[in-house]
Amino acid sequence: MQFAPGTHVLLDVHSARHLDDADRLEAVLRAAADSIGATVITAHFHSFGTGSGVTGVVLLRESHISVHTWPETGYAALDLFVCGDMDVEPAIALLIDALRPAAHDVRRMARGQSNQVAQPS
Amino acid sequence: MQFAPGTHVLLDVHSARHLDDADRLEAVLRAAADSIGATVITAHFHSFGTGSGVTGVVLLRESHISVHTWPETGYAALDLFVCGDMDVEPAIALLIDALRPAAHDVRRMARGQSNQVAQPS
Repeated sequence: MQFAPGTHVLLDVHSARHLDDADRLEAVLRAAADSIGATVITAHFHSFGTGSGVTGVVLLRESHISVHTWPETGYAALDLFVCGDMDVEPAIALLIDALRPAAHDVRRMARGQSNQVAQPS
Repeated sequence: MQFAPGTHVLLDVHSARHLDDADRLEAVLRAAADSIGATVITAHFHSFGTGSGVTGVVLLRESHISVHTWPETGYAALDLFVCGDMDVEPAIALLIDALRPAAHDVRRMARGQSNQVAQPS
């Protein structure tokens, strides 16, 4: 058996837009889920106030997408974790296109592949 | 200004216990938040059925903790993202102690520090 639960993407965006708009961020993250055929279980987005940051998550059958924003510096930290061999690239491209950062950084991390241990008896 | 939004921890546990118990996992993740003085905004945990996996998240004022489990293989993928210079080590220790994995892997990733770009004018 190939034990490969999934891919975890850390996406940092700098000098990005719309970072204080919780409704818009929820729509963007839901669209990112749709773009890769993921199924949304629930979503929750919290605004810390007008002009302030947003913290939000879309919980998926295939894991999650989250966003945490600092509009005062134009920075946001997103992560996207999907299990299996689902192609995450359309979601990454959609998130970057929607937030229009001046710069971004993507790290793709394998999950569940770093140890090979026996299963419990 | 030091621009240091936070630390993102990826925690993989292998041959762990209690991975099909959504209520217990929620209690563990809430306790992990408490252990580092983080404030819970909301939490949502979804069970895929008895003996099956759980996907859940605790949304924090300081970002989030998530868990996605595969009880059939004893594997779970957790992540813990906290902003600022909050010490995440007590939460990591609590999660490992609660899930009692035969093996685990911790990756600590800096967020928001990989690019230095000008702020929007």
